[in-house]
Amino acid sequence: MARDILREENHGGNVYGPRGKLRTDALDFSANINPLGPPPGVKKLLRENIDMVAYYPQPAAQALRNDLAAWHGLKPDTLLVGNGSIEFIYLLPQALNIKKALIIIPGFSEYERSCRLYGVKSVFFRTKEKDGFKVDMPELIKAVSEVDAVFLCNPNNPTGTIVSARELSVLIKYCERYKVFLIVDEAFIDFSDDVAKASVIKETARHKYLLVLRSLTKIFALAGLRLGYIAADAGLIKRVAAFQYPWNVNALAQAAAAEAIRDRQYIEKSRELIATERGYLVTGLPNLSGVKVYPGAANFVLCELDSPGAGSARELRVRLERRGVLIRDCRNFRGLDGRFFRVAVRSRAENKKLLSALSHYLERR
Amino acid sequence: MARDILREENHGGNVYGPRGKLRTDALDFSANINPLGPPPGVKKLLRENIDMVAYYPQPAAQALRNDLAAWHGLKPDTLLVGNGSIEFIYLLPQALNIKKALIIIPGFSEYERSCRLYGVKSVFFRTKEKDGFKVDMPELIKAVSEVDAVFLCNPNNPTGTIVSARELSVLIKYCERYKVFLIVDEAFIDFSDDVAKASVIKETARHKYLLVLRSLTKIFALAGLRLGYIAADAGLIKRVAAFQYPWNVNALAQAAAAEAIRDRQYIEKSRELIATERGYLVTGLPNLSGVKVYPGAANFVLCELDSPGAGSARELRVRLERRGVLIRDCRNFRGLDGRFFRVAVRSRAENKKLLSALSHYLERR
Repeated sequence: MARDILREENHGGNVYGPRGKLRTDALDFSANINPLGPPPGVKKLLRENIDMVAYYPQPAAQALRNDLAAWHGLKPDTLLVGNGSIEFIYLLPQALNIKKALIIIPGFSEYERSCRLYGVKSVFFRTKEKDGFKVDMPELIKAVSEVDAVFLCNPNNPTGTIVSARELSVLIKYCERYKVFLIVDEAFIDFSDDVAKASVIKETARHKYLLVLRSLTKIFALAGLRLGYIAADAGLIKRVAAFQYPWNVNALAQAAAAEAIRDRQYIEKSRELIATERGYLVTGLPNLSGVKVYPGAANFVLCELDSPGAGSARELRVRLERRGVLIRDCRNFRGLDGRFFRVAVRSRAENKKLLSALSHYLERR
Repeated sequence: MARDILREENHGGNVYGPRGKLRTDALDFSANINPLGPPPGVKKLLRENIDMVAYYPQPAAQALRNDLAAWHGLKPDTLLVGNGSIEFIYLLPQALNIKKALIIIPGFSEYERSCRLYGVKSVFFRTKEKDGFKVDMPELIKAVSEVDAVFLCNPNNPTGTIVSARELSVLIKYCERYKVFLIVDEAFIDFSDDVAKASVIKETARHKYLLVLRSLTKIFALAGLRLGYIAADAGLIKRVAAFQYPWNVNALAQAAAAEAIRDRQYIEKSRELIATERGYLVTGLPNLSGVKVYPGAANFVLCELDSPGAGSARELRVRLERRGVLIRDCRNFRGLDGRFFRVAVRSRAENKKLLSALSHYLERR
C-alpha cells in the first residue's frame, strides 16, 4: 500500500531527459513498440484533427467499442475500452472481488502490484529457465483450483513464450469448472506468427470466466496516447464498467484507434517485419560472447549473460545507455536475477547497432 | 455498484453524432469549456509533435509536476497529475479510506457516484434556492464533525456560487481540528474574477487535511486530452499516488499542459472574456419570458424556468437540440428539479444565438 510509483523507474521506455524533453536520438530497445511507428494515416488524422482536444471524449468510447466489436466478431457489450490495458489490470481485482490470484513468473510486474494494492493474495507459478520458461500446462491446471483468478500473459512478457489456443482451451474449461477467472493478457499477441492459433479473444463469447486484455499501443505504436481494451462475458463487462470513471479514454486515442484498426495490412506488415528481425536477433545475439537467448513469439527477446565474466545486466544497461542504446534490465522481474535483460525487436539498421554496441561492450571486458 | 456508465448520458458535452463523428456545427452550451479554445501555441505544439504518440509518457508526469509546482509556488511532492481531475474523485475514497462524506448539493454528481462505488456513506448538505444556492458556512461547519470528508466545489457546479478563501479558512481549521478531509474542487476557479481571493491551493502547504483539485481541461479547452491535478500534504499525495497506475496521463496531455501554463496571459484574457459575456447572459436571460437566472462566478450560468407555462428544462433541451444548440438539463443534479438548466458562457456571437434560440422557443409556447 505504501508503494510510491513516483520514484520508481520500473519499466522500460524511459526516453525522457531532464525537464521532460523527449530524447528522440536514443535507440530504445527497452520498450516493446512497433518499430514502424504509428500508421501514417493515424498520424495524418491526428494532425488534421487537433481541434478535437477542445471537446470532451465520448464518455465510454461507444463508437470505438462498436468498431472493435465488428473487428473481432464480438458484441459491443462484451468489450470495454480503457486508458491502456493497464487500467484493467488495476480494475479487475476490485471489480471481480478477487481474493487469491495465481501469477505466472517471470512476468509483467503490474499484476502483482495491483493485487497487493487491493489486498489480493498472490501465489506465484514459476516457469523454469531449463524449460526455456515454457508454462507446464498440466502443473498450472493443478494449481488453478487453489485460487480465484489467474493472470496469464500470452505471449509472456519478458520471456516471449507463447501458449496455443488449443493448449489454453483445457485451462479455460478447468477455470470455468472451478469458477476461477482466467485473465489472458494478449498485449503482444499481434506480433506473434499466427494470432488465430494463439488468441482466445473469440472464446470470451462462450466462456463466462475468461477475460482477454488487448492493447493497441504496442502494435500501432500509440504508447503515448494510451489505448487498451478487455473482452469478456457481458455480465462481467458490466461489473468492470461500474469501476471506470467517465472520459477515461482521451478523444485522440479513440480517434486514432478507430483509424488504426481499419488498416489490417499494417498489422500483417508489422508481423512480417518482426518475424524477420526477431530471427536476425536470435541468430546474432548468441554469437556475442556470454549471451544466451530465449527465442520467443513476441516483439522482444529475453537474453541472459551466462558467462561469469560478462558482468550484470544492470552494468550492461548503464554502459549502453551512455552510447544512447536503451535496454531493459530484468532484475526487477520476480523470478529473474541480475543476469537477464530484454531487448525489443526493431528495424534491421537499429538491430545492427544494438548487436554492435553489445559486441563492443562484451569484447572489452 | 451496479451502475452502468455505458448507457448513461449524465453529463453535458455530448457532441458526438452517429459512429462517433464530432458535430463541430453544434453550439455546445452544455459543456463548460473556454470558448477561446486551446491556446494557439498548444495546438501548434501538438501538431508538430504528433510523433510523441509512439513513446510511453512519463509514468508519473514528473516534468509537468515540476512545472505546476513552480507555477503555484508549491513543492513537486505535494502535487499529483491525473487523467482529468475526475481520476482523483475516484481515487480519494479509497486512498483516504473515507467512510462517511458530506456532499454539498446541488453539486457535481460524480462525488456521490464515487462514494457509492467505494461503499462511502454520503450525507447531503443542501443549499437553498431562496438563498441563491449560497453555502451557509456556519451551518456547514456544524455538520463537518459528523463525517470524515467534505466535497466542496468552488465555484460550484452547476450553481456557480463561490466561497472566498477567507470564508474557507474557518472551515479549513475546523476540518483540521476534527481530522476531516476537506476536498475543494477548483475545476472552474480560473474563470472567477479573482482567483487569488478564492483559491486555497496554496493553503495545502500548511494544512494536512486540505486537498485541492484542479483541472486544465476547462480553462485551456483541453477536455479531449484529459488533464487534472491535486495538491495536498506530501504524505497524503503519497497515499493517493499509491493508487495510480503507471502512464495514467497520456504524453500529449502532459506536453500540452506544460505549454499551456506558460501562457499566463491566456488565463487573464479568458477570464476577462468570461466576465464580460457572463454579464451579457445574466442581463439578457431574465428578459426572456419565464427564465430566472442565478448569476455565479464561473463560466456557466444556472437558469430556472420559473413560470408554469414555460415547460420543463428537458423539453427545452430537446427543442434547442433540434436547432443545433446544446444546453445542460439539470434534472439529474440531486437537489434540482426539472425546471433547471445550465448554459456555458461562450463568445458574444454564440451567446446571441443562444438568447435568440431560447427566445424563439419560449415565445412560441
